Amino acid sequence: MTTITDSPDHEVDHAVAAALRAGTAWRRTPAADRAAVLDAAADALAEAAETLWPVADAETRLGETRLRGEIARTAGQFRLFAQVVGDGGYLDAVIDHADPAAVPPKPDLRRVNHPLPGVVGVFAAGNFPFAFSVAGGDTASALAAGCPVVVKAHPGHPRTSDLVARTVRAALPSPDLLGLVHGFDAGGRLARHPGVAAIGFTGSIAGGQAVQALIGERPDPIPFYGELGSANPVVVLPSALRGDVTALARGFAGSLTLGVGQFCTNPGLLFVPEDDRLLTAVAEAVAATAGGPMLTERIRDGYLGGLDRLAGLRVLAEGSAGAGEPEVVPRVFTADLAEFAAGLPGIAEECFGPAAIVVVYRDPGDLPAVLSRLAGSLTATVHALDPAEAAEIAEVLRPLAGRLIWNGWPTGVAVNWAIHHGGPWPASTSPAHTSVGSGAIARWVTPVAYQDWPEGLLPPELRADNPLGVPRRVDGRLHPGK
Amino acid sequence: MTTITDSPDHEVDHAVAAALRAGTAWRRTPAADRAAVLDAAADALAEAAETLWPVADAETRLGETRLRGEIARTAGQFRLFAQVVGDGGYLDAVIDHADPAAVPPKPDLRRVNHPLPGVVGVFAAGNFPFAFSVAGGDTASALAAGCPVVVKAHPGHPRTSDLVARTVRAALPSPDLLGLVHGFDAGGRLARHPGVAAIGFTGSIAGGQAVQALIGERPDPIPFYGELGSANPVVVLPSALRGDVTALARGFAGSLTLGVGQFCTNPGLLFVPEDDRLLTAVAEAVAATAGGPMLTERIRDGYLGGLDRLAGLRVLAEGSAGAGEPEVVPRVFTADLAEFAAGLPGIAEECFGPAAIVVVYRDPGDLPAVLSRLAGSLTATVHALDPAEAAEIAEVLRPLAGRLIWNGWPTGVAVNWAIHHGGPWPASTSPAHTSVGSGAIARWVTPVAYQDWPEGLLPPELRADNPLGVPRRVDGRLHPGK
Repeated sequence: MTTITDSPDHEVDHAVAAALRAGTAWRRTPAADRAAVLDAAADALAEAAETLWPVADAETRLGETRLRGEIARTAGQFRLFAQVVGDGGYLDAVIDHADPAAVPPKPDLRRVNHPLPGVVGVFAAGNFPFAFSVAGGDTASALAAGCPVVVKAHPGHPRTSDLVARTVRAALPSPDLLGLVHGFDAGGRLARHPGVAAIGFTGSIAGGQAVQALIGERPDPIPFYGELGSANPVVVLPSALRGDVTALARGFAGSLTLGVGQFCTNPGLLFVPEDDRLLTAVAEAVAATAGGPMLTERIRDGYLGGLDRLAGLRVLAEGSAGAGEPEVVPRVFTADLAEFAAGLPGIAEECFGPAAIVVVYRDPGDLPAVLSRLAGSLTATVHALDPAEAAEIAEVLRPLAGRLIWNGWPTGVAVNWAIHHGGPWPASTSPAHTSVGSGAIARWVTPVAYQDWPEGLLPPELRADNPLGVPRRVDGRLHPGK
Repeated sequence: MTTITDSPDHEVDHAVAAALRAGTAWRRTPAADRAAVLDAAADALAEAAETLWPVADAETRLGETRLRGEIARTAGQFRLFAQVVGDGGYLDAVIDHADPAAVPPKPDLRRVNHPLPGVVGVFAAGNFPFAFSVAGGDTASALAAGCPVVVKAHPGHPRTSDLVARTVRAALPSPDLLGLVHGFDAGGRLARHPGVAAIGFTGSIAGGQAVQALIGERPDPIPFYGELGSANPVVVLPSALRGDVTALARGFAGSLTLGVGQFCTNPGLLFVPEDDRLLTAVAEAVAATAGGPMLTERIRDGYLGGLDRLAGLRVLAEGSAGAGEPEVVPRVFTADLAEFAAGLPGIAEECFGPAAIVVVYRDPGDLPAVLSRLAGSLTATVHALDPAEAAEIAEVLRPLAGRLIWNGWPTGVAVNWAIHHGGPWPASTSPAHTSVGSGAIARWVTPVAYQDWPEGLLPPELRADNPLGVPRRVDGRLHPGK
């Protein structure tokens, strides 16, 4: 087995330069051909599953079932973006015809999105070695947009990263469209590189702030799309107590401890009515869970540090030890609403791993004042049997989260047209953008307007005959396309 | 006449708090009612033109014709956003129905844009006392989105700012929806205020960098949409010499010196073939222009500093002196392509005012290598009689500018659906966004996805019967709406 070493500066520079060269042809590749390449990348990933999962399991200990599922999802992301490219709606094509009689006269103006002029730098996540890594949603959406990519591999799974890069490159018209670099310093060089036009990042708040600071020092500060931390509050309203309380408790414990709690969407805050039956059910459900090895020692240390931060709270329940190293156990604290409110904002910071606080309230009327003080999250969830009971809480939660969930659990993110995986800071650095689903492509495009431009030089999407049949808004009216 | 003084901290805090309170009702106001308010604001501005223009003329010396035209444009911006709100396309409504049979089962997911949860802070520009100021495109688009606004007035026209604020407030359901503060320190407090959810800025690169730095110090860095500097290159290709060279030269001189060159889109770089007839025509056209008073002494000093920076170049022509203080004259320098290339990047920095460099090339084949080194601009223009001759230059210019213009001039920005007023840094801090036209509303909204959410709690745009008839994408297919 060869050793994977940190990429020196010249390798980063080489990867970016090669990606830029390969990108020139890629951005001019017709949409249908680009879609076919994305489908081929999906096929390549799916076909390599047998080889990929054991390498990832050796590095992450996430297990065959989860990793096979994640590879399928990662392939599915490429397939979704093939559809997005074929559809063309993301191009946001608009035509306003000239009006020479207007005062002042109106020129012919047409606008369409183009790929960002440069390389998309991707900082891979540790907790999804496929779906948020080398060939994850950032890479798939950037390639779909027409941008070349250079990924900074996560140190938790370097061999998986290399193997995935090789697998996807074989499906690309040029292997240089997907560069891969390793190491902390390589990440810094990538964020500062003049050939990089935007950054996608999935990781910790501190990591995101560090990359943002590097970008701030550039002569041309480029867009930074970071998905950082999220506490994912879940509010159980009194009417939910009329339902299956045991199932509710088990649902919480399962979502919290899935993958040893290493999901950015796992529920870190559970607000519950003061009800012994529910609290007992939650304690029993948590006690029935098992911990396990975390992805890296660093992530384990971060989790233990988070537990220390919460050490002043009562422990409601702990799970049992799992197998493997570096191992942790799930731990759920409890506090009453006033105690929790007094500890804000620090008490509500994400503790990455299988830890949560069960916050007990007496009067649901006390919730809005406390909930409205929470920082941004990727998700917020309501459990209730009576929608009318939830109306006010829903209004309070809406500005806090990118996705609102009814009687469900936040782990498990659909990859489709309607998903939004983002939210106010620190959930994301750009609350208007998603890192999952069709909308993720919007991060890598930029509009260009053409004024009185000759038909022969217009992109096909703006020509009179709309040869690609893309959706367009013409003189203010939307036409849905083919 | 009362003295307008800088707003102390408590006034900024009061304006933001009042805007937040008024915003609660405004964001829930039905779209049709919001559109009616925007139309009423347009009427109020148009009806007050007689009162507004003399106040603005006293502060800016831009003259009646220009100011009346700008008021009409400013009213027109409100009317466009009334249409945008009525149309609902900006909401980007998406529905993916549940698929319980899928593996894993797919939940019902619906997404729609909501106004940003907070106040939009607007830093007004000096050069457009109406269209990019208190009631300019940033304010109109933010109100349209459902956000309350607090404007930091430009010091060049404080009385106009107050009068415009009073005029528009009278049309709003609450005057607190449009706050106004004065002074440098008030701007800093606004950028740092926890109640502010995003900033729109039009001004200098240095000013934009200062506001960006303040935002970077926030515990929650908010989106910053700045329109900063732009050199607006114009490339005259050899075939254009077959046309009316005198008209071309006059067009350039007119666009350069319009409003004493105080447009972010005036052409600061003109690339021309080595041709005595054209150079003579340009020199004569520039000599026939007149300067005039600039908006403020600070802007005049900036212009003179820019001239000093270019003092090593030959002067091709100067205009004559105009009337008023602080007065300047138009000045056009010239350099050959190699000399210009040697001076990059500094030589191509925007010199705000009626100054430009005419860059003379011998071989159009030498242009791409030099043009591709230019920084981002709001516009790039090509003059040619033969589109085929322009194909390569167009490819070079496209990644550099937000708007490409054929045989025209960059001043004069249409306000419609297709316009893009933005571009790569330093033209804008966010190359995916425009500050003019219907797309400007996208800066002030954020998506929320609803998972398995009860119909009764969904926003109307996501309900099964689509009562507002907004455009929607349902299960991947686009429906254009009413």
